[in-house]
Amino acid sequence: MKKTLAMAGMTAVMALCAGAASANEELAGLMKDPKNWVAQAGDFANTRYSELSQITKDNVKDLKVAWTFSTGVLRGHEGGPLVLGDVMYVHTPFPNIVYALDLNDNGSIIWKYEPKQDPNVIPVMCCDTVNRGVAYGDGKIILHQADTTVVALDAKTGAVVWSVKNGDPSIGETGTSAPHVFGDKVIIGISGGEFGVRGSVTAYNLKDGSRAWRGYSMGPDADTLMDGEKTMSLGKPVGKDSGTATWEGEQWKIGGGTTWGWYSYDPELNLVYYGSGNPSTWNPSQRPGDNKWSMTIWARDLNTGMAKWVYQMTPHDEWDFDGINEMILTDQDVDGKPRKLLSHFDRNGFAYTLDRESGELLVAQKYDPAVNWSTGVDMDKNSPTYGRPAVVAQYSTHQNGEDVNTTGVCPAALGTKDQQPAAYSPKTKLFYVPTNHVCMDYEPFRVSYTAGQPYVGATLSMYPAPNSHGGMGNFIAWDGVTGKIVWSVPEQFSVWSGALATAGDVVFYGTLEGYLKAVDPSDGKELYKFKTPSGIIGNVTTYEHAGKQYIAILSGVGGWAGIGLAAGLTDPNAGLGAVGGYAALSKYTALGGQLTVFSLP
Amino acid sequence: MKKTLAMAGMTAVMALCAGAASANEELAGLMKDPKNWVAQAGDFANTRYSELSQITKDNVKDLKVAWTFSTGVLRGHEGGPLVLGDVMYVHTPFPNIVYALDLNDNGSIIWKYEPKQDPNVIPVMCCDTVNRGVAYGDGKIILHQADTTVVALDAKTGAVVWSVKNGDPSIGETGTSAPHVFGDKVIIGISGGEFGVRGSVTAYNLKDGSRAWRGYSMGPDADTLMDGEKTMSLGKPVGKDSGTATWEGEQWKIGGGTTWGWYSYDPELNLVYYGSGNPSTWNPSQRPGDNKWSMTIWARDLNTGMAKWVYQMTPHDEWDFDGINEMILTDQDVDGKPRKLLSHFDRNGFAYTLDRESGELLVAQKYDPAVNWSTGVDMDKNSPTYGRPAVVAQYSTHQNGEDVNTTGVCPAALGTKDQQPAAYSPKTKLFYVPTNHVCMDYEPFRVSYTAGQPYVGATLSMYPAPNSHGGMGNFIAWDGVTGKIVWSVPEQFSVWSGALATAGDVVFYGTLEGYLKAVDPSDGKELYKFKTPSGIIGNVTTYEHAGKQYIAILSGVGGWAGIGLAAGLTDPNAGLGAVGGYAALSKYTALGGQLTVFSLP
Ligand SMILES: O=C(O)c1cc(C(=O)O)c2c(n1)C(=O)C(=O)c1cc(C(=O)O)[nH]c1-2
Ligand SMILES: O=C(O)c1cc(C(=O)O)c2c(n1)C(=O)C(=O)c1cc(C(=O)O)[nH]c1-2
Repeated sequence: MKKTLAMAGMTAVMALCAGAASANEELAGLMKDPKNWVAQAGDFANTRYSELSQITKDNVKDLKVAWTFSTGVLRGHEGGPLVLGDVMYVHTPFPNIVYALDLNDNGSIIWKYEPKQDPNVIPVMCCDTVNRGVAYGDGKIILHQADTTVVALDAKTGAVVWSVKNGDPSIGETGTSAPHVFGDKVIIGISGGEFGVRGSVTAYNLKDGSRAWRGYSMGPDADTLMDGEKTMSLGKPVGKDSGTATWEGEQWKIGGGTTWGWYSYDPELNLVYYGSGNPSTWNPSQRPGDNKWSMTIWARDLNTGMAKWVYQMTPHDEWDFDGINEMILTDQDVDGKPRKLLSHFDRNGFAYTLDRESGELLVAQKYDPAVNWSTGVDMDKNSPTYGRPAVVAQYSTHQNGEDVNTTGVCPAALGTKDQQPAAYSPKTKLFYVPTNHVCMDYEPFRVSYTAGQPYVGATLSMYPAPNSHGGMGNFIAWDGVTGKIVWSVPEQFSVWSGALATAGDVVFYGTLEGYLKAVDPSDGKELYKFKTPSGIIGNVTTYEHAGKQYIAILSGVGGWAGIGLAAGLTDPNAGLGAVGGYAALSKYTALGGQLTVFSLP
Repeated sequence: MKKTLAMAGMTAVMALCAGAASANEELAGLMKDPKNWVAQAGDFANTRYSELSQITKDNVKDLKVAWTFSTGVLRGHEGGPLVLGDVMYVHTPFPNIVYALDLNDNGSIIWKYEPKQDPNVIPVMCCDTVNRGVAYGDGKIILHQADTTVVALDAKTGAVVWSVKNGDPSIGETGTSAPHVFGDKVIIGISGGEFGVRGSVTAYNLKDGSRAWRGYSMGPDADTLMDGEKTMSLGKPVGKDSGTATWEGEQWKIGGGTTWGWYSYDPELNLVYYGSGNPSTWNPSQRPGDNKWSMTIWARDLNTGMAKWVYQMTPHDEWDFDGINEMILTDQDVDGKPRKLLSHFDRNGFAYTLDRESGELLVAQKYDPAVNWSTGVDMDKNSPTYGRPAVVAQYSTHQNGEDVNTTGVCPAALGTKDQQPAAYSPKTKLFYVPTNHVCMDYEPFRVSYTAGQPYVGATLSMYPAPNSHGGMGNFIAWDGVTGKIVWSVPEQFSVWSGALATAGDVVFYGTLEGYLKAVDPSDGKELYKFKTPSGIIGNVTTYEHAGKQYIAILSGVGGWAGIGLAAGLTDPNAGLGAVGGYAALSKYTALGGQLTVFSLP
């Protein structure tokens, strides 16, 4: 054990010295060693699965807290730490501090990087001052700051290697998403859908921060990096300038479709996958048309950014069902044939499985029975509405019109799932999905655009799904091939934390009250729980060090669900409607910012 | 076990309803049940000793974290939680939130009280925004806010019962000390020695917050509540207006001698014990004379406030050896005769044992061999300098004069011990003392008084005691009767946390790096340690609930030692000279505010 460990350490060190030439292989290599946790999702495929198996479903009940670390920052702590050999990298919400902690010395601080950022960015962050974590590649730690600065730090010293500005907070552009290192590129998304920002994805060269390409969510083909003939959607070419054709006038220029979620990468296909967000404004009457390519699953070539295929899940969104949730890449048999799949749990309440090479839609099913805005997705390839959800008129905020309160829409704007990432276990072939079980009233109103000002145009209130278990969340297991819930565990609040599945047959997640929970992957039975200092909206990770498997989680209540606590709001309609729904959270937890690390005794 | 517990719960509830008539007995009764921790020190005598013995020196190695709670506030967390039956009361630094937590429901929040305070008080707090905790009495939780407001909250609901203003932050008066409930009174001290505040102690009636008496540290007898004939010092009457006689002109009006420490109470003698702080300014040349009664141990009658006896430890202070450290009341044999003792570990490096009835000085010995400013205290009752420390000329900042840097003074201004309270075990008859092992350079300069402005008049730098173990602290065991160190454990940093001794033969303390440590009372051997989220300057407490003994500690680095981290200061001379000395702390911990609760598995 000792020997393999020492070797793992050496591998990490050697990798750190390898240089950009082999950045691609370096990172892929580090990922293969399950002792590390070297990307936010653990791997390129976004599975959040670990091969470590020291902690098992039989002994997980004996977990104890090994050590803890306060980040020195309050408010919502999303994402999780990276572990590379003997070093752990921990990030914080605004002001976006990064710590390198020495795992050989009880987590003492090797270096700390604290950027100087104009705090005026805070009021233009829609959903708390969150940051979803750092990335690693080529000896550098990449940080995406709230003010959209992307900075590469020397992983050994914390010294700035390069720095680049991705957007402009004065027009509402902000950074909350994790950078993703794929090949020799750093992929960076942008936030600001509630400020009329036109979303884009930018690839920077890992080596020096120079820009490789930028693809917008809407606009002419030169902006969206689409080819009218070659970019496909459900098997058909998208046609010329599809990113302006479904918009009225120049509304696409302030059209939203931001890109603040998790990214995946298939090295063989060399494709990057992600979702684009809601069209802007939230008042659908102000933007007739399908509003392409908001609410879309994208597959882009890593080298060029060119879109290979797209699939718009919620044409002409009327509920803020922002489509950014992660794409999880799995290889499974469908009808007895091995397929390269992509699964996605959308805010709109449908879980989609597609062929990730072709973009073919294989499954689209509700992953919460409460979902009521649509009766289902048309799966008939010959239908003119193929791939489109059938909207229930009663819940159409556009049909009901401006200044009309559409009530009882399920899910609420924060969706059946929001940013909280799911995990996939190749052992069980199941997805483990943290979900929301929340419905809403939604009243759109006319709003005019002013750069840097909120451009929302709807008043919302949220509440637990009626006639159900009374809680606001479930943690579920999902079969992506059959499109069925395998089991569902009710939770009092939305599960705003990311899940982890392990080869030890344990699935972990955190709760907004602050519990880290371990459940049995086969039936969801609770095996262990522990009350961490603050509500959990971070993502559970695992690593091995000195022969021991550890489970690590950031606490720090906040995010959209916890915005009432995080920003001290009490008006039930404040925080884009989330404050009222989650008001009871203040009975269970207070602000924090802590890492808790668990191990067996 | 279950049954006794239920009964303990009932006792607590009954007590809560008992009313003020028997406030005295109520609190004394609650204290007798070691399941509770109902005053900051656990008892009136300030022993910080618990009869609980489930956690023993043999099984303490198996301790694990049972649950945690983030306070939602950063910076220095001093003091500790109270436990009363099924409820725990947790306080925070500014803004001084109080939480009532339900021990039957995983620490969920029963109520939260957050006072509205003008943040302008922060710049007039000398040594971080600390608060040393709440008190309980007569169904009320008493909070002493930073802005000097004293508020009584209904222990069951958090509703304000009464509120009174003790001082005025606009002239530098602030509140950091814990209220102490003795009999039917609430004893409140005041801070502001670095702002020329004239210290005083005020007794409020627990029932309604009306003022019972106020005794100043200096001034005419009517202010100091002294009787020239009856108030004694080392066996002699103090004489008329002793509180002005040893001052030049009206300097006593801005004379310091603040009272921000821990208070003790002997119910039989009905005497309240405490220490007064340094004379103001820190430049001794500006205040010739003994500066009575700064730097003094006081014994006051609880009912009237009249001073029964006083003993000035450091006449005419030249080093900021603020005398406020706690008085620990023990009954021990001296020369074979049982005596009512008072022991005190002063900032000046001497540990004193006195007869607490008469004020007779029995022992005065250095409790750190590094102490060099004095060769010793004159113990000859017939000497004209009886009871006075002999000052080594080399280290006299007055003799060296203004604008001269006196170097190598040990201890530093923060003393061999600061606010961090010691514990006493009646089983071992030893004191367990968290200490500093720090020396300083001290350069006084002329300063003029402006109300509400710093009135310090000295530039300091601090460093580990030279030619020693290299660290800045020790944790020691002390025999108060013989005046000898029994054992001493070196620590890298000052031990700024309060100790706890238990009948299970374990002594606990916390470290500035964030470790909770358990040691063997007989030899200091480390039995257990755990890295809590942030540096510890809180005081370890213990309680029993549902048949289990728990150990609780607040983390949250700060206080004077941690002011660099807490206030973000980096100039080595900043923070009254503490920043440079403790700069290395930033390698180990970051700001926080968490409660960690431990138990056996
Ligand atoms: O449209 C956007 O640009 C944007 C940005 C963000 C963000 O960056 O955090 C969120 C959202 N939208 C959003 O719709 C949403 O539900 C949301 C939740 C959270 C969160 O961290 O809890 N962020 C965001
Ligand atoms: O003179 C005063 O009024 C006064 C107040 C305080 C305080 O209230 O915290 C401290 C001190 N002095 C002081 O000298 C000192 O060493 C000190 C340390 C601390 C702390 O909490 O760490 N407070 C204070």
